[in-house]
Amino acid sequence: MGRLSDCFSEFMFEYDTPRMVLVRHKKVGIVYRLIQLIVLAYIIGWVFMYEKGYQSVDSVVSTVSVKMQGIAYTNENNNSRIWDVADYVFPHQGVGSFVVMTNYIETAGQKQGNCTKDGVCKSDSDCEKGKSMEGEKGILTGKCVEYKGTLKTCEIFGWCPVENNHIPDPPLLMAAENFTMFIKNAITFPRYGVSRSNVVQFNKSCIYHKDTDPLCPIFRLGDLVAMAGFDFRKIAVKGGMIVIGIIWDCDLDWSASHCNPTFNIHGLYGEDSLSTPGYNFRFAKYFVEDRTEKRTLMKVFGIRFDIIVHGMAGKFDIIPTMTTIGSGATVLCDLLLLHFMQRRNVYKSLKFKSTEDEGEAQMITVGGSEKATRE
Amino acid sequence: MGRLSDCFSEFMFEYDTPRMVLVRHKKVGIVYRLIQLIVLAYIIGWVFMYEKGYQSVDSVVSTVSVKMQGIAYTNENNNSRIWDVADYVFPHQGVGSFVVMTNYIETAGQKQGNCTKDGVCKSDSDCEKGKSMEGEKGILTGKCVEYKGTLKTCEIFGWCPVENNHIPDPPLLMAAENFTMFIKNAITFPRYGVSRSNVVQFNKSCIYHKDTDPLCPIFRLGDLVAMAGFDFRKIAVKGGMIVIGIIWDCDLDWSASHCNPTFNIHGLYGEDSLSTPGYNFRFAKYFVEDRTEKRTLMKVFGIRFDIIVHGMAGKFDIIPTMTTIGSGATVLCDLLLLHFMQRRNVYKSLKFKSTEDEGEAQMITVGGSEKATRE
Amino acid sequence: MGRLSDCFSEFMFEYDTPRMVLVRHKKVGIVYRLIQLIVLAYIIGWVFMYEKGYQSVDSVVSTVSVKMQGIAYTNENNNSRIWDVADYVFPHQGVGSFVVMTNYIETAGQKQGNCTKDGVCKSDSDCEKGKSMEGEKGILTGKCVEYKGTLKTCEIFGWCPVENNHIPDPPLLMAAENFTMFIKNAITFPRYGVSRSNVVQFNKSCIYHKDTDPLCPIFRLGDLVAMAGFDFRKIAVKGGMIVIGIIWDCDLDWSASHCNPTFNIHGLYGEDSLSTPGYNFRFAKYFVEDRTEKRTLMKVFGIRFDIIVHGMAGKFDIIPTMTTIGSGATVLCDLLLLHFMQRRNVYKSLKFKSTEDEGEAQMITVGGSEKATRE
Repeated sequence: MGRLSDCFSEFMFEYDTPRMVLVRHKKVGIVYRLIQLIVLAYIIGWVFMYEKGYQSVDSVVSTVSVKMQGIAYTNENNNSRIWDVADYVFPHQGVGSFVVMTNYIETAGQKQGNCTKDGVCKSDSDCEKGKSMEGEKGILTGKCVEYKGTLKTCEIFGWCPVENNHIPDPPLLMAAENFTMFIKNAITFPRYGVSRSNVVQFNKSCIYHKDTDPLCPIFRLGDLVAMAGFDFRKIAVKGGMIVIGIIWDCDLDWSASHCNPTFNIHGLYGEDSLSTPGYNFRFAKYFVEDRTEKRTLMKVFGIRFDIIVHGMAGKFDIIPTMTTIGSGATVLCDLLLLHFMQRRNVYKSLKFKSTEDEGEAQMITVGGSEKATRE
Repeated sequence: MGRLSDCFSEFMFEYDTPRMVLVRHKKVGIVYRLIQLIVLAYIIGWVFMYEKGYQSVDSVVSTVSVKMQGIAYTNENNNSRIWDVADYVFPHQGVGSFVVMTNYIETAGQKQGNCTKDGVCKSDSDCEKGKSMEGEKGILTGKCVEYKGTLKTCEIFGWCPVENNHIPDPPLLMAAENFTMFIKNAITFPRYGVSRSNVVQFNKSCIYHKDTDPLCPIFRLGDLVAMAGFDFRKIAVKGGMIVIGIIWDCDLDWSASHCNPTFNIHGLYGEDSLSTPGYNFRFAKYFVEDRTEKRTLMKVFGIRFDIIVHGMAGKFDIIPTMTTIGSGATVLCDLLLLHFMQRRNVYKSLKFKSTEDEGEAQMITVGGSEKATRE
Repeated sequence: MGRLSDCFSEFMFEYDTPRMVLVRHKKVGIVYRLIQLIVLAYIIGWVFMYEKGYQSVDSVVSTVSVKMQGIAYTNENNNSRIWDVADYVFPHQGVGSFVVMTNYIETAGQKQGNCTKDGVCKSDSDCEKGKSMEGEKGILTGKCVEYKGTLKTCEIFGWCPVENNHIPDPPLLMAAENFTMFIKNAITFPRYGVSRSNVVQFNKSCIYHKDTDPLCPIFRLGDLVAMAGFDFRKIAVKGGMIVIGIIWDCDLDWSASHCNPTFNIHGLYGEDSLSTPGYNFRFAKYFVEDRTEKRTLMKVFGIRFDIIVHGMAGKFDIIPTMTTIGSGATVLCDLLLLHFMQRRNVYKSLKFKSTEDEGEAQMITVGGSEKATRE
């Protein structure tokens, strides 16, 4: 028992450190110290200061809700109309991905039946029955019928009359440029129990501006389009797509009230992109008239907004701090032993075997080689 | 050739290990062993056991579909009505982000035309033509017309009659408290080819409860609202927002059948939040009556649910295991050499240079300094 | 001052390296070299080559828009109908998660009122007033009324007539098999300022095929269903769910034009899954007829598509490269010192203390133990 506890106490009170050779050589020394300096600068400057190596991190959980405001007036074919939010936003519910209508082709009162569309035929044999017409508006009935006087065209069965493909220019809802978008973005960093919103403090009549009002949650559509690098007048005709990035980069070692979002707007494709330009989709408003189901088909050209939230929060944590400075344990003990203990010289002489400075080193090479190999 | 292979075999059969100084000093020894203990505990306890350093990880790919069930009965202005799923869920398709209507303001039979709204004017000059009215219901026609007897107000052009802004209280669809929500969440961990669903085994009439039935995929709306910390009666009036987090944290070293989700519900904003309370949106049901397009405008107050799935799976992998124990290679060799080889004492004496225990150490400081520096 | 700068220059020109023991022992040597080889192979092969340890990485930010094309013809109850995009896609706007209708149950002209549904009762007492009927179609009025001759059933109040639950088989929109889906996916790697799209170069009449046309953005619905492992004829009846993964794994050390997506299709549940099979939802088309609000209820069975984009880009970066080769610093200095300096033998003799090869080692154990402990 006594022996075991001896062994244990011996083990407990021991400290082992590698024996080093201290080489006094200018070139090697400088290269070595330089590398050490770079590594040190990297660890302190990059890992600790810049990448905050002493923090644990958490990524954001978020929800977005959006509310549009504004009305547009159109006067197509002497038909006055007001368009409000319920008419021009799709979908209605205010989610983070939606389309604001800027232009449209309306085909009112369509019903299922037979009708014609441009394209020329000579006889019924040119119109193969059941084939679907180009542009997918309906299927051919197999008849070649008169159309605009003596001109003949294949008859189709489908929703009639057929939609025309003339895109209004200037766009019908140019007023959309002044619509405003109110973005509510509530976030949580679950690990730290911190919740924030982008609408904590703001003036109800503010308009977001990158420099003068970067925390205002209300955006003017025209501004967003300009920030995305598009020309509103152009993009409104055929539609486009804009991504609004909301970035939360928070250092929670400071007060949570410093944790605010930045906005980052960029257009993904519009008029000038390589791929098929524009953004459009069709939807129908169904109704029954004279016991018949009818629909008003809308081809909507608009700007699609995608709001994407990402972010990270960091906070001081003992674990990554320990890990980062972990390798420093030996260094600490050595420091104590070699510089602050009473008998530091003994330890130093045990740990280090030094080659002498370059003048004396010559002597070693003469008489010391034997000694060295022997040792 | 012989020389080269000699060199190679010499290289192959060599093992080099740093020479150490063994210092027998109580304070330094204890500090050193303590630090070693902490590092060891950290590596074994934290990296290996808690963070499962021997596993590779993969994040989840998932889809969510939702089905609501329940009906509500309203009797507004002696107008009995049943509301079913097609009437109160937006959008209909059952995606992971949707709104359940709990209250509404209905404005039936709107059509484009002129009408009035509260607000007082004296003469036409008070109503600037073309200006959009406050609240964005329409644009001013420029006329000041009579309204409620002798009171005069600006006439507007827009969807008429104008929506009133009286929010019903108690909420019209209080019955929503008993609606149920069936959540299907299918996930895949692509790296391991493991697919799971939250609906594998359950009783069709179960209701989710955190403690008594944590795997039931059917949720009662009232329960969800309570779990989010809201009062249903209050939140139903103006609406609110609830995030349902589904978390899959799976250790695939065990059977995949142990891989089950946990649910995490929290309200993001409702009645009591700092920012504008509630959640509402407008949508319109269009129809044609007497050859005129009309619409029924609905201002919907409701609870928006966002279902967010996240998760990680870990599985034993040789690579991270190797990396974690990688640094152990030298330790292993040293162990072999110093404790299990026949000639371990020779190796020990070569590797370690020990300072004697403190009593003897005094002697070294007297006569040993010369010896130490000479060596 | 002179002393301080002396100290500093001394410090600057020093290089210290641990003293090693060189052990010539076959078994230990081979184990050691083997472990070294494995570690080296792991670092070079895995960390550097395979995981590209010299690169920094960034994850993708993306938007998806989708356009369907195709028409279907149905002839239910001698009622010819054409279904186009506005009729069969939900929602209309072309977002990355949507449903394509393949089958439906239509209940035309529903209005609020009293009606009956199967189920038998004897007297009014069997029909508890206000209770909601099974299947949630309406609430009981409390009356037991005649139905189909002398059979009696509980009367309900709700949308009447009640939806029947006969699912058409074969599915009404079998033609959906030939619909095509055009997927536009624009991505950005914000860190590198690289933007790409999947629609840069393609033939407008192409159809995606895994092997022959992997970059075509147009997909045939029947092909997608087959790739997901489903039988179209079967899945179309009750609906199903398909996930289209778009994966961007880009090495931006090469030209960005090599950065192209791969597609990964898998079905999450359909006809043959364990959980409730199929995918369906209800929506209503509202209209006013004879001053009464009516609706056409559609129970839609369809295929839900979820398009999920993920990806990473890597690019050469000095920081991770430095980190990976960082530990090489000492190795580099040692290499210089021990092999390329003029006086390398001196350094070698200082650094290494070698045990002799096994034959000679016997001698050390005899006479050398004293020498070793003395040193």
